[in-house]
Amino acid sequence: MIVLFTDFGLSGPYTGQMKAVLHREAPGAAVIDLFADAPAGNPKASAYLLAAYAPSFPEGTIFLCVVDPGVGGVRPPVVLEVDGRWYVGPGNGLFELVRRRAGKVRCWEIDWRPERLSASFHGRDLFAPVAAMLACDASPPGKVRDCARDARSEWPDDLAEIVYVDHYGNAMTGIRAAILPAGTKLVVAGQVLDRATTFSDRQPGTAFWYENANGLAEIAVNQGRADRALGLKIGDPVEILT
Amino acid sequence: MIVLFTDFGLSGPYTGQMKAVLHREAPGAAVIDLFADAPAGNPKASAYLLAAYAPSFPEGTIFLCVVDPGVGGVRPPVVLEVDGRWYVGPGNGLFELVRRRAGKVRCWEIDWRPERLSASFHGRDLFAPVAAMLACDASPPGKVRDCARDARSEWPDDLAEIVYVDHYGNAMTGIRAAILPAGTKLVVAGQVLDRATTFSDRQPGTAFWYENANGLAEIAVNQGRADRALGLKIGDPVEILT
Amino acid sequence: MIVLFTDFGLSGPYTGQMKAVLHREAPGAAVIDLFADAPAGNPKASAYLLAAYAPSFPEGTIFLCVVDPGVGGVRPPVVLEVDGRWYVGPGNGLFELVRRRAGKVRCWEIDWRPERLSASFHGRDLFAPVAAMLACDASPPGKVRDCARDARSEWPDDLAEIVYVDHYGNAMTGIRAAILPAGTKLVVAGQVLDRATTFSDRQPGTAFWYENANGLAEIAVNQGRADRALGLKIGDPVEILT
Repeated sequence: MIVLFTDFGLSGPYTGQMKAVLHREAPGAAVIDLFADAPAGNPKASAYLLAAYAPSFPEGTIFLCVVDPGVGGVRPPVVLEVDGRWYVGPGNGLFELVRRRAGKVRCWEIDWRPERLSASFHGRDLFAPVAAMLACDASPPGKVRDCARDARSEWPDDLAEIVYVDHYGNAMTGIRAAILPAGTKLVVAGQVLDRATTFSDRQPGTAFWYENANGLAEIAVNQGRADRALGLKIGDPVEILT
Repeated sequence: MIVLFTDFGLSGPYTGQMKAVLHREAPGAAVIDLFADAPAGNPKASAYLLAAYAPSFPEGTIFLCVVDPGVGGVRPPVVLEVDGRWYVGPGNGLFELVRRRAGKVRCWEIDWRPERLSASFHGRDLFAPVAAMLACDASPPGKVRDCARDARSEWPDDLAEIVYVDHYGNAMTGIRAAILPAGTKLVVAGQVLDRATTFSDRQPGTAFWYENANGLAEIAVNQGRADRALGLKIGDPVEILT
Repeated sequence: MIVLFTDFGLSGPYTGQMKAVLHREAPGAAVIDLFADAPAGNPKASAYLLAAYAPSFPEGTIFLCVVDPGVGGVRPPVVLEVDGRWYVGPGNGLFELVRRRAGKVRCWEIDWRPERLSASFHGRDLFAPVAAMLACDASPPGKVRDCARDARSEWPDDLAEIVYVDHYGNAMTGIRAAILPAGTKLVVAGQVLDRATTFSDRQPGTAFWYENANGLAEIAVNQGRADRALGLKIGDPVEILT
């Protein structure tokens, strides 16, 4: 199974062209859209999101990840094998949290190049063919790379920021709920929020935080939109009150 | 074939995670996105939409339906078999019109539970695995339930409201066009609208209603957007002038 | 492989219903979404977009194309075979540039009709079944048609207009970059833009044009949105300064 994690957006020809390459090079491989709207041009916020969502996929899953504002620049194209799952994409920090939270990690720098490599669409021309190779059980086409070279040691283990706002207006933070002691409150946009277990725990219109279905602390409003009610967007800071 | 009918929205990781479960539990089953933008948190409007779109699918189709504002609350998880098609989702009225318009109906309450059931994402954790079981020809994992228990008898047979606004700005009502006598006019937002057969029947800019390709009375403007021209949104009342 | 090119939008039941037909009539055929947001109701702009994106697909690909403001009107439903690829859709100019830039072209007018043909959704009722027939290696169900009958000779070889704005706010023109001499500047919204090779060539915030990954001249802003910075939308004129 190849899982797509990109900031290509829902519209436009980008995801479709990648899928056409995957279909041609790895016919029959299942391809699943996870995020097409990862934080745009923001590998850091994306890294916390990816690390929260990847572990629920089975071993052998290949994550084809493209949040790559430096396409055409100098970041290396990389492959990682982390606890039995594969990751293909730019070495710009996008895999930092997946790597940091892992047991066993191996890294490669992709040195394979396609016949034609566009300057702006490595997702289609470089990363998708490599993901297809892995789906066909080939080895990563490149040299082993010291994983530490791409580390972002200065990034925290949990990111106290909004990293994603979903269709319902719920705002995910980059904080794993499991690290927060019982009774923790979160402060965003000047509001102090209690923890709830489910939406129906709370009065309609009340803002709260809860552990979402992938373990992130998420800010929501029962029968409302937290993004509008609190004025939240990606990058907004979150304070932890324990 | 498994058909998805949800209010998860187009963006975000929800549909992808459900598809990953379906792929794992029912590999090879075709999965089709019908609506990812059913009326959000609105099982009633969604029920009329689903009942209009489901009958065109072949027997054996499994509809995985999640419009579930009460997730984590008390509504029962259910399976219905209706005229040879299967429906999996919350027993919150979402299947009311499918059931009411049917010949033969059987209902079950799902009593199977996964190893890990999140509080907020039964679509992934409960309903998708059950849909996958049905796709693998298993029986519904639960007890037969009296279908009448979930009935919404107070809901009308046709809903004289806007239930969906599409990409073109066309506004679908919850009224089957076939029940409307010849010469029927619809009144919305203070405007009296005549019936047309096709868009090109009407002058550019003129609002009208017509029977859409799935049998619903739909309000449109030739070469324009009815939602903007008339200020329409989901829930707006429609009056029938016969 | 069947590739979808429509203006159905990302939301709503249109693409899903077409895919259900394709699955029923050509089970196992891969279906790829290329554009669901081709310029709405605009076969001319769509024609330049399609001609830029189609050639990268392999021979034998079937393009199911629906940008069809005249549905229910008089435009003929057509099939084209162009350099080994198939195109199915309305004969309203949508295939003009594909045809004009081709080596070998054959055209048919579809005379097959389904049992039930809705007035407004030929994509599902007529074009999808025909695409499925082609995917099953059937001949086009119709009579050979003189391709010149649907020609739009008055349309230019390259369209000096914005034809698409993507998720990042980049604005594609209908001009092939390869026809522009070195040193060409493009003028849009009163601004004179230089050519760049990659985004990272330019200072953040600077507008420029570049050859996109499918050969079109595209207007962008490094780390910004060209559509907002320059106020661009589909149909805006572009001037070529050589």
